[in-house]
Amino acid sequence: MTDTTGALPHPDFTLPVRGDAYRRADADTLAGFDTITSATACAKLHGMGITRSWVDGPVPLSPGQRVVGSAITLQFMPQREDLASGLGQEYVERHTALWAVLEQVQPGDVLVIQAYGSRFSGCIGDILARYFLRKGGAGIVVDGRIRDAARIRQLGLPVWSTGTTPHYASQTELFPWAYDVPVAVGGALCMPGDVVIADDDGPVIVPQAMSNDVIDAARDHEEWETFSRRRLDEGARLGDYYPLTPDTREEFEAWRSAQAFAL
Amino acid sequence: MTDTTGALPHPDFTLPVRGDAYRRADADTLAGFDTITSATACAKLHGMGITRSWVDGPVPLSPGQRVVGSAITLQFMPQREDLASGLGQEYVERHTALWAVLEQVQPGDVLVIQAYGSRFSGCIGDILARYFLRKGGAGIVVDGRIRDAARIRQLGLPVWSTGTTPHYASQTELFPWAYDVPVAVGGALCMPGDVVIADDDGPVIVPQAMSNDVIDAARDHEEWETFSRRRLDEGARLGDYYPLTPDTREEFEAWRSAQAFAL
Amino acid sequence: MTDTTGALPHPDFTLPVRGDAYRRADADTLAGFDTITSATACAKLHGMGITRSWVDGPVPLSPGQRVVGSAITLQFMPQREDLASGLGQEYVERHTALWAVLEQVQPGDVLVIQAYGSRFSGCIGDILARYFLRKGGAGIVVDGRIRDAARIRQLGLPVWSTGTTPHYASQTELFPWAYDVPVAVGGALCMPGDVVIADDDGPVIVPQAMSNDVIDAARDHEEWETFSRRRLDEGARLGDYYPLTPDTREEFEAWRSAQAFAL
Amino acid sequence: MTDTTGALPHPDFTLPVRGDAYRRADADTLAGFDTITSATACAKLHGMGITRSWVDGPVPLSPGQRVVGSAITLQFMPQREDLASGLGQEYVERHTALWAVLEQVQPGDVLVIQAYGSRFSGCIGDILARYFLRKGGAGIVVDGRIRDAARIRQLGLPVWSTGTTPHYASQTELFPWAYDVPVAVGGALCMPGDVVIADDDGPVIVPQAMSNDVIDAARDHEEWETFSRRRLDEGARLGDYYPLTPDTREEFEAWRSAQAFAL
Amino acid sequence: MTDTTGALPHPDFTLPVRGDAYRRADADTLAGFDTITSATACAKLHGMGITRSWVDGPVPLSPGQRVVGSAITLQFMPQREDLASGLGQEYVERHTALWAVLEQVQPGDVLVIQAYGSRFSGCIGDILARYFLRKGGAGIVVDGRIRDAARIRQLGLPVWSTGTTPHYASQTELFPWAYDVPVAVGGALCMPGDVVIADDDGPVIVPQAMSNDVIDAARDHEEWETFSRRRLDEGARLGDYYPLTPDTREEFEAWRSAQAFAL
Amino acid sequence: MTDTTGALPHPDFTLPVRGDAYRRADADTLAGFDTITSATACAKLHGMGITRSWVDGPVPLSPGQRVVGSAITLQFMPQREDLASGLGQEYVERHTALWAVLEQVQPGDVLVIQAYGSRFSGCIGDILARYFLRKGGAGIVVDGRIRDAARIRQLGLPVWSTGTTPHYASQTELFPWAYDVPVAVGGALCMPGDVVIADDDGPVIVPQAMSNDVIDAARDHEEWETFSRRRLDEGARLGDYYPLTPDTREEFEAWRSAQAFAL
Repeated sequence: MTDTTGALPHPDFTLPVRGDAYRRADADTLAGFDTITSATACAKLHGMGITRSWVDGPVPLSPGQRVVGSAITLQFMPQREDLASGLGQEYVERHTALWAVLEQVQPGDVLVIQAYGSRFSGCIGDILARYFLRKGGAGIVVDGRIRDAARIRQLGLPVWSTGTTPHYASQTELFPWAYDVPVAVGGALCMPGDVVIADDDGPVIVPQAMSNDVIDAARDHEEWETFSRRRLDEGARLGDYYPLTPDTREEFEAWRSAQAFAL
Repeated sequence: MTDTTGALPHPDFTLPVRGDAYRRADADTLAGFDTITSATACAKLHGMGITRSWVDGPVPLSPGQRVVGSAITLQFMPQREDLASGLGQEYVERHTALWAVLEQVQPGDVLVIQAYGSRFSGCIGDILARYFLRKGGAGIVVDGRIRDAARIRQLGLPVWSTGTTPHYASQTELFPWAYDVPVAVGGALCMPGDVVIADDDGPVIVPQAMSNDVIDAARDHEEWETFSRRRLDEGARLGDYYPLTPDTREEFEAWRSAQAFAL
Repeated sequence: MTDTTGALPHPDFTLPVRGDAYRRADADTLAGFDTITSATACAKLHGMGITRSWVDGPVPLSPGQRVVGSAITLQFMPQREDLASGLGQEYVERHTALWAVLEQVQPGDVLVIQAYGSRFSGCIGDILARYFLRKGGAGIVVDGRIRDAARIRQLGLPVWSTGTTPHYASQTELFPWAYDVPVAVGGALCMPGDVVIADDDGPVIVPQAMSNDVIDAARDHEEWETFSRRRLDEGARLGDYYPLTPDTREEFEAWRSAQAFAL
Repeated sequence: MTDTTGALPHPDFTLPVRGDAYRRADADTLAGFDTITSATACAKLHGMGITRSWVDGPVPLSPGQRVVGSAITLQFMPQREDLASGLGQEYVERHTALWAVLEQVQPGDVLVIQAYGSRFSGCIGDILARYFLRKGGAGIVVDGRIRDAARIRQLGLPVWSTGTTPHYASQTELFPWAYDVPVAVGGALCMPGDVVIADDDGPVIVPQAMSNDVIDAARDHEEWETFSRRRLDEGARLGDYYPLTPDTREEFEAWRSAQAFAL
Repeated sequence: MTDTTGALPHPDFTLPVRGDAYRRADADTLAGFDTITSATACAKLHGMGITRSWVDGPVPLSPGQRVVGSAITLQFMPQREDLASGLGQEYVERHTALWAVLEQVQPGDVLVIQAYGSRFSGCIGDILARYFLRKGGAGIVVDGRIRDAARIRQLGLPVWSTGTTPHYASQTELFPWAYDVPVAVGGALCMPGDVVIADDDGPVIVPQAMSNDVIDAARDHEEWETFSRRRLDEGARLGDYYPLTPDTREEFEAWRSAQAFAL
Repeated sequence: MTDTTGALPHPDFTLPVRGDAYRRADADTLAGFDTITSATACAKLHGMGITRSWVDGPVPLSPGQRVVGSAITLQFMPQREDLASGLGQEYVERHTALWAVLEQVQPGDVLVIQAYGSRFSGCIGDILARYFLRKGGAGIVVDGRIRDAARIRQLGLPVWSTGTTPHYASQTELFPWAYDVPVAVGGALCMPGDVVIADDDGPVIVPQAMSNDVIDAARDHEEWETFSRRRLDEGARLGDYYPLTPDTREEFEAWRSAQAFAL
């Protein structure tokens, strides 16, 4: 086997790559998404012109789990042995972007991982998940797989992934490459600091600068849906109350005012 | 943007399309399928020459759910903005086949939706599911996705789908086009009024006119399987009791008569 | 095997289904698309708000082939033996929508076939292709496979399909069901009478009522691209001439006038 | 229909095919894997040069199930009607490799089935599963589907499969061909007598002759991970304890000795 | 890295595996398929009850190529390093089933290779193809990929494969395991000695014992199709001549007799 | 529609992103790959420990085309309308990484594009291809699609892609994001300045720092293969000359010396 020492094409190239500084979504914003489902956020973003907010692929590890948080990002790249030795990877990993990003975790963070939907890479295992949770991490969205699924389920950490595998992160085709960078996950772009909402319908990325507009639009939406559910349960016709017509919008607004007054 | 008013190629073409009148499967027939699994129905149909009765793709939202009902159908088509405006779709939807079919629901109906296994269309959300349930709808089989999965699970409505997405029905690539028409779902043809049986093995379509023959064949099948399970549990050899040989068929028939006599 | 005579759920249901009358795209319109590529038509439709005009899947049987024509449609459905006997299908086919649609072919027609991308159905074979060609058919777009590919290639008939198979149309999972109906092909909706343009980039469906607008927009586009190609070949910078800036648009228009004057 | 009697190309060819005799993994070895996860076994095998130990595809029928056992194998092949009549298959099955392998089951066996990930073949149903369980079978791994999923779940038999279908084993495209032969499952090779470990991360095949080496390596691994989890929970830095550095390895070994002493 | 010497679970297990002796299809039979297309053979087999004769996946390397021959078979299995060292595989290959089967090639043989459609295994390269050709090999059908495609095309050897890759046969996930054994290719079963017909529609496997019946049925079919083509070219109606009705069957038979008389 | 002006989460974030400076592969190195196929380079890299050098997915636009060059890179990301307006994209494109990278092209460059295998993005059209060619560009490898395929084929520019589409680069789901950055293409990592070899077997990435070692190893390989072909054509046994045994290696070396002497 050829000695590959010094095989880097750019002698000054060093891993891991770290992206630019960014601002996390603030706690008030995150709190504002408290009762908003990923479906409502996605519909409102669509109305505002954002058509690819859904992360297509990852599903919840446990049905019913839900998370809202500020995105912290990790990007895998195809593994190349001249850049990261194929032997002893498990021990090399500690110097990678995977270890580095875990040291950056702050309470409320959702870790969003670009792994190309790889079936062969268990991007997160139970010890990393445990460490993430201890740092206050709120949840993980990985466009790829996880390992140690049974133990992670026991930890109660909400995780969305494309499946499970016994492989560790860099056992096969990928390598943790960069963090704090924009990532491509399931057809959506996620910038560090974006708001992530995930539930049984999957994860949705809300651009940070649009998050308050989404909250406002969604709150109104959830309110009239509550009203509509009630009317429909009373026997009303679907077309009259879902969505609201101009007439039933008026009716709803009267009802909402009355509700507020009642409080 | 070009004004697309009047862009319909056929000025007299109107949506939604509605199929011909049909007869629902009657209550006695549905009751006859009470204890018949989708696996047994599918095997018996195969024996009668029907080789594509299984709807390949949709899986249960909650493990263990089961439904038998008469098919009511909805067909999506690729969305085209000259026929249904791309803007404000959520509000246009109320005039579509999706809203129309929900007004047709009668107790015991199973809604069967042709959506080409689309990953991007959440054909049914919680308010529609709730309305369907209130009308007496028994279950939904969609060759596509649903949204608001957490809330639909809480409703307890049995749903078979190819997954979840936060998108609403016409948010992306499809549009509700026709109802009360034959539909192609997961490689099977479903006519309005066919019997739908769905459980953890997936949905099976029983042609209405063959449903009583299937019930008869399945009843016999489930009876000798009960007998076989008992004998096998007692230590008998698989090849002697599953399936029955001419000898053990005789033994079974004697057993069955004795059972009936005992009652 | 159970006798399936009279097994139709709707005694009055008859195959094949035929859609409503429609108007073909006229010859002048088709001539207007003479030099317009599918790529240009697709981009112009996108600019007009039509986002799903491309038929994703079918590729040309022979590189370099091209067709423009008026759509004539055929729709397959999953085969069900109670509606169309599984035995002797080859002989039953003559009473199906496949035979019926071929009798409707007029010069300039492009046959567009909905077959769900089926790998197992050879929707068109060489004798049908030959008959189609003799009637003046211009080309075939099938979201499914063909058989007798070598002979069809020799006929010189332009065909776009998802591949080849030795199976005949109803040998396996599908059955020719309806014609002269809207069809869903590769994620696009095609109405009978729409304009179909297909080349090495694939087929594009132009809604009939929008076809003249597309011709106008495309003609301008192809003209300025001709101009841009010339300038770029002379060494101009890409950003200045592709697409045109306000300045180079002016330059182009002067050039175009000069060209016209020269003629 | 042509008479296909005597259609075998090799008059002396008989089904089912049975492989050579083999030695099961012994009970001590199986006991040694008691606390070892599929993830740890897979990582240790990787370190020993075995890169394809994971069976990619099959997922647990019930979350949380786990099994360790000695592999007993079954191989399906594409069904061909001249070798196994297409009519009356359900009754022909009793003379196939599927029935034959079930008679070979011994306590602790894991049945590993090569079925090419077929969506259309329900390789195991509830009566076969029940029989398997009664013989002491420990679990089933099938690179294909199962039927009667609800009943099998009730039996409590751990099963890994690629999904469910109402079809029985030989209803459609496959036929049980051989047993006690090497099988290809989800990209891994399994020899009869290999050790199978399966949990929520999926099944892993441990070559029998390497099983004791894997146990030794895994035991050390699980021990230092226990130590690391403790230190990380106490606030240590990830890079210092996962994996162990030379320094923390020493600390671990002191801790381990102390633990042993304490016992 | 652990020493894996002696790691075989069965000390007496030796590679490559060789199947039982078989009889090749004779030259007269192969000659009988001279003008029969894979499409006609497949349709006739379907009529005789064989429903899976098509090898789904492999496509011709060069459009228009065609072959008829007697099947000689090769089976890959997932590569496992304890059975075949992962290092130096290129040199180990010479002791595998791949080298062994090439020594068995006789004039007129078609090599049929089971490789699970692997994207990563270039089962045949130009030197092996050249050797095969020199031995009189007629063509190759591989349910997997080839390498050195440009050179193999120049050799003029007809090859059907699922694509190309620069990898050699055992570079990645598979290993040549057995020869002269039944193989599963693209959903079809191929026994050594079966007749293989392949053209632009793909490869078809004709069970050896049925080959003369297929020739007879196909010959009649090709004759009446010739007649039908002629009548249709003269302007006849499709439904009258394709397929033949009882009346036109009579007309055809008269025409055929007249033709024969004319010779 | 909400005003999305100023919607960027990082006010100082600007597109396109440009990677660090790098050194192109020099002309002598590129010349050294003159007669080396992608298959030989890939095998030699595998022997040196690089296991993922093949770009899985892109196929040649025209059979027989071949290129060797120095990689220049472009990376797409999912399109997000707050960062790049969804309306008027065609005109926005000129300020993107796609236009920027084309201005960087130098003679001998191969443009390598990360586009996630997107079916909907025609990353390169004929005007861009023409501009690239005029700048001396040698070829294009895109893990995605192209448009204007017919015209690009006429230009004679060698292109490897995953297919064609009439869509332009940013018409649908992707947006040109960065250039001169490491890219992930078809499971391989490509650094700017790496050597790209592509032919009918697909593209292979040779790390720049390893390129001379690959040339040396490949040259020896191609020489002994020439010798082996000759011997095999003369009737030698495959196992003796492919690959060489120690004995035939000696014979080869004698032959090679004689050859050199003859020159």
